[in-house]
Amino acid sequence: MSGTTTDQPAATMLEVPARRIPPPASVSPEARAALSESWAAGDVAYPPPDDLESWALVRQLADQAIVDRIAAQSAAIAASVETVELAGVTVHVLTPADLAADATNRVYLDIHGGALVFGAGDACRAMGLIAMDRAGVRTCAVDYRVPPEHPYPAALDDCIAVYRALLAEHAPGDVIVGGASAGGNLAAALLLRAHDEALPMPAAAVLLTPELDLTESGDTFQTNLGVDTVLTGSLADLNLLYAGGHDLAHPYLSPLFGDVAAFPPTFLQAGTRDLFLSNTVRMHRKLRAAGVEAELHVFEAMPHGGFGDAPEDRVVGDEMRRFVTAHGSSAG
Amino acid sequence: MSGTTTDQPAATMLEVPARRIPPPASVSPEARAALSESWAAGDVAYPPPDDLESWALVRQLADQAIVDRIAAQSAAIAASVETVELAGVTVHVLTPADLAADATNRVYLDIHGGALVFGAGDACRAMGLIAMDRAGVRTCAVDYRVPPEHPYPAALDDCIAVYRALLAEHAPGDVIVGGASAGGNLAAALLLRAHDEALPMPAAAVLLTPELDLTESGDTFQTNLGVDTVLTGSLADLNLLYAGGHDLAHPYLSPLFGDVAAFPPTFLQAGTRDLFLSNTVRMHRKLRAAGVEAELHVFEAMPHGGFGDAPEDRVVGDEMRRFVTAHGSSAG
Repeated sequence: MSGTTTDQPAATMLEVPARRIPPPASVSPEARAALSESWAAGDVAYPPPDDLESWALVRQLADQAIVDRIAAQSAAIAASVETVELAGVTVHVLTPADLAADATNRVYLDIHGGALVFGAGDACRAMGLIAMDRAGVRTCAVDYRVPPEHPYPAALDDCIAVYRALLAEHAPGDVIVGGASAGGNLAAALLLRAHDEALPMPAAAVLLTPELDLTESGDTFQTNLGVDTVLTGSLADLNLLYAGGHDLAHPYLSPLFGDVAAFPPTFLQAGTRDLFLSNTVRMHRKLRAAGVEAELHVFEAMPHGGFGDAPEDRVVGDEMRRFVTAHGSSAG
Repeated sequence: MSGTTTDQPAATMLEVPARRIPPPASVSPEARAALSESWAAGDVAYPPPDDLESWALVRQLADQAIVDRIAAQSAAIAASVETVELAGVTVHVLTPADLAADATNRVYLDIHGGALVFGAGDACRAMGLIAMDRAGVRTCAVDYRVPPEHPYPAALDDCIAVYRALLAEHAPGDVIVGGASAGGNLAAALLLRAHDEALPMPAAAVLLTPELDLTESGDTFQTNLGVDTVLTGSLADLNLLYAGGHDLAHPYLSPLFGDVAAFPPTFLQAGTRDLFLSNTVRMHRKLRAAGVEAELHVFEAMPHGGFGDAPEDRVVGDEMRRFVTAHGSSAG
């Protein structure tokens, strides 16, 4: 997928020498501390797709790492939590303790990140709480099915099923769809498929450092390689596991290549160190070219997914809440 | 100025290995071609500040290189050109041949780039034509004084003088102030100083890949070093020449550190390979934190100043014209 490197004559290659990059003075102390550590311990050798037992263990370890990382942050969020089946899909319904009286009709459909493989269960619920805290409205965190047992289109089927179920209870103008990373992939794919299936569009969409291109064709997959301390390499192996033999460039798998003209107003966010910066700015340009209202926020020195719980991450949340609040067609 | 590298303990350094980066498949063929060439031939050893004769030659060569690079593009723009003295400053008054009847009252005050040292004379006029073509309104390109003969605050004095002169003939709501690169520095410094001098704000500001921080403290001064094929290194020597002993961190020299709360609606643009990407996104965040209307556009794989005359550069122009058109308080 990142094989473009070998397709080019050597003469056109940009030779970038090795560098030692300091944590910048231009971010908060918390952000600097986050930039001094790396999530990954080198390349991971994944099990073969048919070794389901090993995959269950790999997912369990990865999901627990997510939970551990955000445990303190998510535990501090005051909310009522209910886990239900909606249209046959597990959904965590998260209601802010301080829900505004004029927001009771509104719902945020949150699709979690985790490279389209990780982040289910407890991790989904914990990430959903952070999303709820940012959105400021009741949040349905979709605990979609994951590969290798359930490759594409299982996760997208689950998201569409929940979206349909929410439309049965809410005006489209009261629904916002969003997600971070792999969740941004599924949120954008949901919009494309909803349009194809003649469903109404939601009021708005939120794409946080979104994985919109499973072919990884954007320039920052190269320029920010080794610079992004969270995403430290290609996700090609996991993308193939998710695709399960489907074309990675199909718009339902790589929404960057879809027709986005029907998209609702869209909020896009990434960081300057983000491996997915190209995904984000390319979608911003594509939406604007299609005449869709879209706003872009790029954060100084921020790697994929943010610094954690630094002041800059809270600004991401503030901007997201302002956008969600501004894009409702009705008030409760 | 970029000495932060030595201030950090080695343990916090990010080690980025050497890389060979292909021109991305995610941009136009014209953009790919531009990314395959580099402007600079290594580090330039500048003459000492008091060697005015050598500096005149260095500037002449640099200015001619600018003119040569954009000659075809600027020559194709239909405009009437008049060079006048306005408040004692040389200004090229550029009027589009197809000026819209409802835009005759409006004026774009264009401040040229060139690292605060280069870009005067013919280069100023040629760059002004491109700015005029993008703005879509009559443009006054300020041919401000440059160092070493005229260090700070000469250039800013000239820009302020022209702004005052334009305010004598135009409603503030009919004036837009903008610039690219070093011109973005002077445009933002002009706004800060105009506010301090109790002048009214213009209708809007345009900051294209702006040099807002002469201390070069942003992260992309490191992360995009060697990745940006236009700005291939620090401009610290030229910044010191311009400053002429003044503090580089003063807001009139580094507007990123100023109080921007009084800024008018501001358009900001940069590229993902841009050494000034941090300048741009940091100012965007600062404006938004201050409650100023500001919109950010970041272009895939674009180096400082753009690809030249690629389709992507024309999109920059289209967005800028839309913004300028949308931010007028009156129509002719």
